[in-house]
Amino acid sequence: MNRAVILARRPQAIPQSEHFALEERPMPVPADGQIWVRNHYLSVEPAMRGWLSDASNYSDPIHVGDVMRAFAVGEVVESRHGDFAPGDRVMGLFGWQEHAAVDPSAILLRVPDTDLPLSLYLGILGLNGVTAYFGLLDICAPRPGETVLVSTAAGSVGSCVGQIAAISGCRTVGLAGGPEKRRQCLDEFGYDAAIDYRGEPDLDAAIARACPDGVDIYFDNIAGPISDAVLRHLRLHARIAVCGTASIASWDPWPQGARPERHLLVKRATMRGFLTFDYADRFDEAVAQLSAWLREGRLHYREDILEGLGEAPGAIARLYSGQNQGKLLIRLPAAKD
Amino acid sequence: MNRAVILARRPQAIPQSEHFALEERPMPVPADGQIWVRNHYLSVEPAMRGWLSDASNYSDPIHVGDVMRAFAVGEVVESRHGDFAPGDRVMGLFGWQEHAAVDPSAILLRVPDTDLPLSLYLGILGLNGVTAYFGLLDICAPRPGETVLVSTAAGSVGSCVGQIAAISGCRTVGLAGGPEKRRQCLDEFGYDAAIDYRGEPDLDAAIARACPDGVDIYFDNIAGPISDAVLRHLRLHARIAVCGTASIASWDPWPQGARPERHLLVKRATMRGFLTFDYADRFDEAVAQLSAWLREGRLHYREDILEGLGEAPGAIARLYSGQNQGKLLIRLPAAKD
Repeated sequence: MNRAVILARRPQAIPQSEHFALEERPMPVPADGQIWVRNHYLSVEPAMRGWLSDASNYSDPIHVGDVMRAFAVGEVVESRHGDFAPGDRVMGLFGWQEHAAVDPSAILLRVPDTDLPLSLYLGILGLNGVTAYFGLLDICAPRPGETVLVSTAAGSVGSCVGQIAAISGCRTVGLAGGPEKRRQCLDEFGYDAAIDYRGEPDLDAAIARACPDGVDIYFDNIAGPISDAVLRHLRLHARIAVCGTASIASWDPWPQGARPERHLLVKRATMRGFLTFDYADRFDEAVAQLSAWLREGRLHYREDILEGLGEAPGAIARLYSGQNQGKLLIRLPAAKD
Repeated sequence: MNRAVILARRPQAIPQSEHFALEERPMPVPADGQIWVRNHYLSVEPAMRGWLSDASNYSDPIHVGDVMRAFAVGEVVESRHGDFAPGDRVMGLFGWQEHAAVDPSAILLRVPDTDLPLSLYLGILGLNGVTAYFGLLDICAPRPGETVLVSTAAGSVGSCVGQIAAISGCRTVGLAGGPEKRRQCLDEFGYDAAIDYRGEPDLDAAIARACPDGVDIYFDNIAGPISDAVLRHLRLHARIAVCGTASIASWDPWPQGARPERHLLVKRATMRGFLTFDYADRFDEAVAQLSAWLREGRLHYREDILEGLGEAPGAIARLYSGQNQGKLLIRLPAAKD
């Protein structure tokens, strides 16, 4: 039997374990043109909240009774498609389940190398790293000497952004919640400065101290009042990459905040949303560069690995409460074969 | 004597006539390197509110007792600078006064042609037209078939944006306040559709009707709740040029509004502020192209000309109340010589 996590009822805000159920289903049978993948690691990520919403979004909502949509890495068991063969290692939308029979369009990446851990292709060599790579280099075009501020700076995307910014010759400043994440920014991810926004009585003063020349680039994963504060410190021709809105618990009713228009006008600044999938035809370029930096010891990462499918239902809430220490993954029995 | 309008006391919101005073001052004497200009037309524009504020801005605040900063067109009376000669016609920051002795840095444009009315160099061939030209073509990069929505669509910048968008092959939709401005959009400035936002009981429905495929480009002169509504109708990869914030009466306290981040993210949209002066080294290119379109009859404009310096103090409030019908100018006696 194939064990799977299905959506039991639709959450209105942060998904909790009671919104899911663990089910045993018949083993999937690949149709002609499909690939049967056995999953080794499953991903848990903030975007899942959006996928579970029935509001307008960039992806179709998941229906009650469906297997929870998720990225996973695994190994091809059987292939009825000419491009894939048993033993190939692949990353894609294989769902929170042990086995999946998928169309080739569900496969986002063929794992190119065997010298790096498979789990990394769900993190720093997967969508997190690729998001950091294109979001910083393409959307923000950093120049040496510029100041780059990153929110959720110790997170799996943010920590990679900070390190690519440093490789690009920028001064890097991290915004993170709590003294432990601030310490990780400084000690593990090499930020030049870091701010614990929970512990700061005056966030404006802290940003001004950490960014005495202002903020050239703001890589924003959170939105909300903390980002409003950052906008008060933009430098002329600043670029803001809108990558996520993690601090906003619900968009219904639509939240209000400080209007950005005057900052954008006075500082001739640009605020731009982006979606990593728009760069799908350039993923290989990003993974190759990130792999090279990893092998050179210039990129560091953290993983937080939970054991077994039973941990999946409660994992999204864990992410939003900030309990995780690094990229949150679920390891399945196949990973230990 | 030189008659001048000076700032008598600093306004907190929209400047009114009581914030200014009319004074007679000695005729200016050009120092070595300076140019003496006799003004023909003075400009009145929304940016003046910002210049009069003592809040952080892209220009120094005007001090109480100073001549009111203003663009003007006039003629060189006497030149103590090698680049200018008596009789040259020039546009620049000459102030709300009859005569000015200025450094060459105050001159923004040398009027190139004599076949077009001098007053146009304060409007469609001046900063309004140049703002429309770079704000639309450079910031928004319109492509044929795209839908361009313009706020203050019948205004001196907006009407030019709409017409350049049409010349670029776009479908154009104007947002304007009141039935008369809506009529101007359709009958005088050639918009494909126009919305009177004051008369619409359901602005969202009106935007959806006027832009059935969504909004590719929003050229925003106003900010505020009307712009918040436009953001709900963005199309994928939309571009928003933040040109002005005319609907916001005061930025102290900082106004709140609907957060834009989710729209920008889901639609992979870009919101960008710009300042026309950043294009100073390309003004000649814009004026040449705008002049050519004017001569071909492809650009239409409206001027609202008040007679005499005494009209200047009340003119900014007139602009913000929407009483003006076209680019608001003050004609001085020199214009009738």
